Amino acid sequence: MLINNIDYRTVWMQDSSVYMINQLLLPFKFEIYQSKDYIETANAIKTMIVRGAPAIGATAAYGLAQAALLFEGYGYNDFKEYVDEAFNLLNLTRPTAIDLKHGLNFVKSRMFVKGSIANSKMKAFEAAAEYADLSAESCKKIGGHGNEIIKNNQRILTHCNAGALACVDFGTALAPIRIAHYNNKNIFVFVDETRPRNQGFLTAWELSQEKISHAIIADNAAGFFMKKKEVDLAIVGADRIALNGDAANKIGTYEKAVLAKENNIPFYVAAPLSTFDANSKTGNDIVIEERSEDEIFYAYGMSENKNLEKINIAPLESHARNPAFDITPAKYIKGIITEIGIIKPTKQEIQKLVKYGNEKRSSF
Amino acid sequence: MLINNIDYRTVWMQDSSVYMINQLLLPFKFEIYQSKDYIETANAIKTMIVRGAPAIGATAAYGLAQAALLFEGYGYNDFKEYVDEAFNLLNLTRPTAIDLKHGLNFVKSRMFVKGSIANSKMKAFEAAAEYADLSAESCKKIGGHGNEIIKNNQRILTHCNAGALACVDFGTALAPIRIAHYNNKNIFVFVDETRPRNQGFLTAWELSQEKISHAIIADNAAGFFMKKKEVDLAIVGADRIALNGDAANKIGTYEKAVLAKENNIPFYVAAPLSTFDANSKTGNDIVIEERSEDEIFYAYGMSENKNLEKINIAPLESHARNPAFDITPAKYIKGIITEIGIIKPTKQEIQKLVKYGNEKRSSF
Repeated sequence: MLINNIDYRTVWMQDSSVYMINQLLLPFKFEIYQSKDYIETANAIKTMIVRGAPAIGATAAYGLAQAALLFEGYGYNDFKEYVDEAFNLLNLTRPTAIDLKHGLNFVKSRMFVKGSIANSKMKAFEAAAEYADLSAESCKKIGGHGNEIIKNNQRILTHCNAGALACVDFGTALAPIRIAHYNNKNIFVFVDETRPRNQGFLTAWELSQEKISHAIIADNAAGFFMKKKEVDLAIVGADRIALNGDAANKIGTYEKAVLAKENNIPFYVAAPLSTFDANSKTGNDIVIEERSEDEIFYAYGMSENKNLEKINIAPLESHARNPAFDITPAKYIKGIITEIGIIKPTKQEIQKLVKYGNEKRSSF
Repeated sequence: MLINNIDYRTVWMQDSSVYMINQLLLPFKFEIYQSKDYIETANAIKTMIVRGAPAIGATAAYGLAQAALLFEGYGYNDFKEYVDEAFNLLNLTRPTAIDLKHGLNFVKSRMFVKGSIANSKMKAFEAAAEYADLSAESCKKIGGHGNEIIKNNQRILTHCNAGALACVDFGTALAPIRIAHYNNKNIFVFVDETRPRNQGFLTAWELSQEKISHAIIADNAAGFFMKKKEVDLAIVGADRIALNGDAANKIGTYEKAVLAKENNIPFYVAAPLSTFDANSKTGNDIVIEERSEDEIFYAYGMSENKNLEKINIAPLESHARNPAFDITPAKYIKGIITEIGIIKPTKQEIQKLVKYGNEKRSSF
């Protein structure tokens, strides 16, 4: 992704440090966080310096390679034990993120070159870099397929941040938008601010950096612009997709999908193969996390004297309910944009996809 | 309305001061603002110390009475000229608020007792008090009619603040909720926070004061709770209702109405007769105001050291679009709760209502 006209990834490794864009400071300050050992890297995942399933997967992969590289003992068994410890620590940082495990397993399954610690260290680094490259490549392919449904002069609505910041690069929902822009299509993006955590502001920041025309809107205004025929297309990400095509995504996605259907606007979900969950038959099998009331009660931003500050915006004697995700039933989804093409949200198509994904992963 | 267990109105007059609940400080601080002359009262309307069409109407009525009471000249013609000046100043404070004109005309048409300034002063005060009483009474009647559609143990969704704070008392959408509560019905209210201006927090504050169970939710979460069958009924206010039943209300109302329909939840609009606009044939005739981007870019609240503060929450290099209202087509509205009963949102019913309202007003 372009930031200040320089091509960045969300996370990368150089020497034995893992570097990542510090997302706790965005969209207010752009800073690179340098993690000097795997414990710092684990903490960075835990404290959400890096966020978004694909980005977390790559960070964990780099974290494990970093652990290997910094091993200073001698015996090969000690080395293996030490790597297992690092694996476990990294694996526990965000318990629900399945990509975390993918990234760690990818590196672990490739790194051990029997008897040679030096070779194993090198292999670990290579595997982590390969994982990150494959992850970025997946998103780029999503962008390529998604680009085909975007016509010149279209106005696209998106929700939350399914952008490069949530991935290694390109993003999921934002990848088609990026690629359409790189192909000189004239597009405009409506960005839902996405209360309560305002991830839409990260999306807006990414779009600004790429000079893609856009406007932030209150989540309440998406329906208004759809009804006024100012939205041609909606593309969102997904956290998990059930076998029947029901998609779990950031709270509010369901609302926008219903409104899109009501206004005859095609509603697409963009997601890599790893998002499909063969263990969830329908959306009902996906447990929705309710998060702290404080996300409703407080706003976070920059004060006049340029400090990041938290202020209380709601009456504290009230209660709040704060579901973090919702389920969009398959019937509202026109298609799912994956790295191997756009599919219909049907059981038949998704089962084929899951099978393909499993075979591909087992060939890793 | 109850505040700290004391019965308050939003605005009232005592001696020659107009008192109002300072809504700029809510929900953080409860303070009464004392306006000592009509120029201060006009400013209070302009700066939104008082807000909401019915509340503004009553404040303007009191403001005109206040002007009359404080007249210190001698001649009756001077008095009339001076009252006209005050009328014009008060009338210009919020150009689109039709209730403002109603309130002012109500007082002006009753106050002049030929030749007697003293009697005119007294009449002006009586007329303003009568206007406020009638306004409060209308809302109470809306509450009575609306109460009949609320069953015990129901969970009601509301949007924005159509509460007592927006009226002289009781509120419009909140009146049925209040009256149901006073009738010992066990109810629960989902309160949309209503970005960008968060009027839902005022609603939550009112409900807290009345000890009515409720939860604030992100606007994005309304659909989630509807789909989970946790919402039985939706009641919102309206800023203007066209002859065909299309209703203009706070941005996001349309979204919630579509979602209610999709989930078979009855969606009601509560509004006094003065809200019906015979000059708007359909919602298309109602012009929607787009407000400043700053409402999206900044949040307003209380800092840790208990100061009211404004912080920047969105990337300022982005743009925002900020429509303040939207139109909910009549087909999504199950009924309109007025002071004379609940009507269907049809041209026939609304024309009858408008006729009745005009006759009533001309008999003032």
